[in-house]
Amino acid sequence: MKKHNYSAGPCILPQEVFEKSAQAILNYNNSGLSILEISHRSKDFVAIMEEARALVLELLGLTGKGYQALFLHGGASLEFLMVPYNLMRENGKAAYLDTGTWAAGAIKEAKAFGETVVVGSSKSENYTHIPKGFEIPADADYFHCTSNNTIFGTQMKSFPGTDIPVVCDMSSDIFSRQLDFTSFDLIYAGAQKNMGPAGATLVVVKEEILGKNGRTIPGMLSYAAHIEKESMYNTPPVFAIYASLLTLQWLKNLGGIPAIEKINNAKAELLYAEIDRNPYFRGTANKEDRSVMNATFLLNDEAQAPIFDEMWKAAGISGIPGHRSVGGYRASMYNALPLESVQVLVNVMKAFENKVSGMATA
Amino acid sequence: MKKHNYSAGPCILPQEVFEKSAQAILNYNNSGLSILEISHRSKDFVAIMEEARALVLELLGLTGKGYQALFLHGGASLEFLMVPYNLMRENGKAAYLDTGTWAAGAIKEAKAFGETVVVGSSKSENYTHIPKGFEIPADADYFHCTSNNTIFGTQMKSFPGTDIPVVCDMSSDIFSRQLDFTSFDLIYAGAQKNMGPAGATLVVVKEEILGKNGRTIPGMLSYAAHIEKESMYNTPPVFAIYASLLTLQWLKNLGGIPAIEKINNAKAELLYAEIDRNPYFRGTANKEDRSVMNATFLLNDEAQAPIFDEMWKAAGISGIPGHRSVGGYRASMYNALPLESVQVLVNVMKAFENKVSGMATA
Repeated sequence: MKKHNYSAGPCILPQEVFEKSAQAILNYNNSGLSILEISHRSKDFVAIMEEARALVLELLGLTGKGYQALFLHGGASLEFLMVPYNLMRENGKAAYLDTGTWAAGAIKEAKAFGETVVVGSSKSENYTHIPKGFEIPADADYFHCTSNNTIFGTQMKSFPGTDIPVVCDMSSDIFSRQLDFTSFDLIYAGAQKNMGPAGATLVVVKEEILGKNGRTIPGMLSYAAHIEKESMYNTPPVFAIYASLLTLQWLKNLGGIPAIEKINNAKAELLYAEIDRNPYFRGTANKEDRSVMNATFLLNDEAQAPIFDEMWKAAGISGIPGHRSVGGYRASMYNALPLESVQVLVNVMKAFENKVSGMATA
Repeated sequence: MKKHNYSAGPCILPQEVFEKSAQAILNYNNSGLSILEISHRSKDFVAIMEEARALVLELLGLTGKGYQALFLHGGASLEFLMVPYNLMRENGKAAYLDTGTWAAGAIKEAKAFGETVVVGSSKSENYTHIPKGFEIPADADYFHCTSNNTIFGTQMKSFPGTDIPVVCDMSSDIFSRQLDFTSFDLIYAGAQKNMGPAGATLVVVKEEILGKNGRTIPGMLSYAAHIEKESMYNTPPVFAIYASLLTLQWLKNLGGIPAIEKINNAKAELLYAEIDRNPYFRGTANKEDRSVMNATFLLNDEAQAPIFDEMWKAAGISGIPGHRSVGGYRASMYNALPLESVQVLVNVMKAFENKVSGMATA
């Protein structure tokens, strides 16, 4: 039985991506070769890389606007290091918004490069909300934020206007909602949520911000070097990029970001309505900052967890236990999760309510 | 028709790896989930990672000898940077042997960290041989070499004895031949030759050499940090590691490195014998340094290339054109390439000889 996969990442991808990528492993494009055994310099793979890079810009509305899309190694965690290496001047400073575990990880790496100003933080409230009303120093080299906080179920609904470059870690909500992507100068994202399998990292960068900080940057950590080599500075993660291309093609065929945004909003509204209605559950994030991607919620009576857990498992749901930092449950509703899977979860929550209310009155 | 795939990397893998990994993408281990959509923290993937790490040490004869195996992001090119970051002291120095393009790449990155002594180089002879008789400074922090030079078709047959840590880039011949692996302190290898698909990097490190150089190392670049997190400092390249495990299991079932070494030697002997016998071809590397993995050879008369090219293509051979630095042909005979494929190539070379000698006398 196919599962209702709520995993926070790596996560569900479209079924057609599984089918097409499995076929490509057996015989890519009728070439008599597996996608796993072709050279990254082959015509077949160069075409995959070019289409993937172009499609990223097209879906984000950034074609012809001075941006480059790169598919790199290392995950967002390597970007935590590459961002200051490429953008912070020697003795410069950068502004960071601290909205969760990954934002804090980015801040930690930046500190080794220079003054790292934390302009706002919700850490003392266990990151239940997005800080607001913060000020960004005008002389910082860039401002860094995390658009969606997977662990804590919060999401930035707006982004500050500033004259300095804006850098955003969109690992867990890229391609999920319409934004003015031209207001960002550098976007990065681990592939393993809305874009593809683990093992590739997307970087979208406005070229004009590069080459200005005066540092000597090691080749593998230099965005300019990766751009010069057309995202093939070294052997790229071929399969992860191919599966990402398939996912991006699926999104384009669906109608792109405007179409998936409607579906994502419908899924989130359905689940949050039940969390708010059902007297046995409560959400953990401030309502105005709730993530459309990751809904975090708790049982009011944790002693009832074994009953609820048995029920969602029986319904074919997987990947729903919450992160240890929050506890309870986390329903990750990435692009490829169908509305039907959310309905199954909501039905289980209602059935749980009926069961435990019956037990209470029995 | 299945091809005789001589690609230099990414390269041929065992057919059962293609079949099992395609199945795992559709339904991993009958879980109802694709290997691409499971969490790296799931029991299923933790078991894959643990088995892969243990099997690497077992195959290399390093179990229980103070080594750790890690599966990282970034390819060998990121290791060029990580090695000096982790092993070279501030104001320290390191010794490097320059045997080819990738060795030179490692040297370039090391220079940003401190004094980088090139103890030997065959660059002026276009890397046709492995330098010998060089001396390693006793006060260097480590000695770095490249065991096999994919582009130039040379391979180190012995390694210098030294009291300082020995670091070896084995990207293109790891798991292909028996060596005393305990004589190395750090071995690294991009997966995409003998170990698996592109997108994972193997590091095998003797723990006692770490933590001694006094540098503050960014988390993602610190071997100690990766060891502490059991190779899950961040989301690992799940699929590339799984396919690597399948390849390592195939090798173990075959009889491990001793068994594959015999097959690899038979393949290389068959092809080099033909290169030396056939009057229309010549090898490019010094005979004593010839690589068992990559045989580089030229036509004596390049004008005959269109004839030869048509013949090997018709025989179902792919990936055999040489790198632009050497020209001619490069037959990469990695572990998964069957002896039968080498026989097909040798037959084509003999048929070519018959054809062009007939043309000359006609």
